[in-house]
Amino acid sequence: MSWVQKTITLSARPRGFHLITSEIVRQLPELADYRVGLLHIFIRHTSASLTINENADPTVRQDFEQVFSRLVPENEPFYRHNDEGPDDLPAHIKSSLLGPSVSIPVTDGRLALGTWQGVYLCEHRNHGGSRTIVVTLSGSL
Amino acid sequence: MSWVQKTITLSARPRGFHLITSEIVRQLPELADYRVGLLHIFIRHTSASLTINENADPTVRQDFEQVFSRLVPENEPFYRHNDEGPDDLPAHIKSSLLGPSVSIPVTDGRLALGTWQGVYLCEHRNHGGSRTIVVTLSGSL
Amino acid sequence: MSWVQKTITLSARPRGFHLITSEIVRQLPELADYRVGLLHIFIRHTSASLTINENADPTVRQDFEQVFSRLVPENEPFYRHNDEGPDDLPAHIKSSLLGPSVSIPVTDGRLALGTWQGVYLCEHRNHGGSRTIVVTLSGSL
Repeated sequence: MSWVQKTITLSARPRGFHLITSEIVRQLPELADYRVGLLHIFIRHTSASLTINENADPTVRQDFEQVFSRLVPENEPFYRHNDEGPDDLPAHIKSSLLGPSVSIPVTDGRLALGTWQGVYLCEHRNHGGSRTIVVTLSGSL
Repeated sequence: MSWVQKTITLSARPRGFHLITSEIVRQLPELADYRVGLLHIFIRHTSASLTINENADPTVRQDFEQVFSRLVPENEPFYRHNDEGPDDLPAHIKSSLLGPSVSIPVTDGRLALGTWQGVYLCEHRNHGGSRTIVVTLSGSL
Repeated sequence: MSWVQKTITLSARPRGFHLITSEIVRQLPELADYRVGLLHIFIRHTSASLTINENADPTVRQDFEQVFSRLVPENEPFYRHNDEGPDDLPAHIKSSLLGPSVSIPVTDGRLALGTWQGVYLCEHRNHGGSRTIVVTLSGSL
């Protein structure tokens, strides 16, 4: 049994959905040592989130931005928390709909993702800045 | 500390929400050996997902299908990703709303689910075919 | 490698979103012993859920209640599962949208939450009563 934990800073991205699988794997050479395990990825923010979805066609990620921004519209008259602008409260809601973490099986030194699966950084703010994630790898060597 | 990992193939189900708790437990006799731990269940697809909800009344699962198909309608004019038909993009969105994995505590050789909780396979495609899940069991014997 | 698991009973809360971070940490003095690890928190119910979001401004939690109750309205004519009143089926749907568990990295004896992150109990029933959660702590001492 072995544990590895790292903090990774992701550079600022525009509002939308962004593939970050290879950026994470590049910073985790230890992954190759694990025969079986789990990789937990956690974002330390409440206005950005993580999910797993289609890794090939960029129109999927564009559609995600459209769908989530219609599902949780800006400027609803009943919102109370508007301190930081119209994208503030919707960003909190979207973050909880998608969640702050993903957890992926590790098999024979690699993430056991399906062929079409990738990790998305979901940036819900117009100007979210850089984001911090904590990756925790556990398993059997 | 001990790790067990298996790949399980679920037979094709119609679009909708399906209880799979007993199908998973049946294929994990090792569960009985764990005094305390976690079972992680991960689906290797982007148009089907996993969740935990009510395990008794089948009308709950029927209502889930109705609610999610209204929450994320087909044929929205702004969808760009329509390669595989009108159920394609909505299936991706629903998968991220519900998520690709569930993680359940293990206590004294059994899943520590509440009385009314069961694991759902959420099949979002009209013809999704068979689905592959990876189960990873970790804990103390 | 070490495992700790406890069942915690949360006192009944009104329908809405409630911060429970400190209540959980108070019951887990063992956390201080873990150099690196994960805390898994699981709710054993299908009409209440857990999420992580903003821990300071109470209007965020008030807005969550408004948004989720509009996203999944009561009394839709197509609902079949209404045995326990108009808040019954919506509570099941909200529970799966938010999910039954959260998993948080542990670093140097503390939860590695971001500055603004807290754990929410999401109570979706009008009279949900007390709720049971299972906390599972694993990691390296």
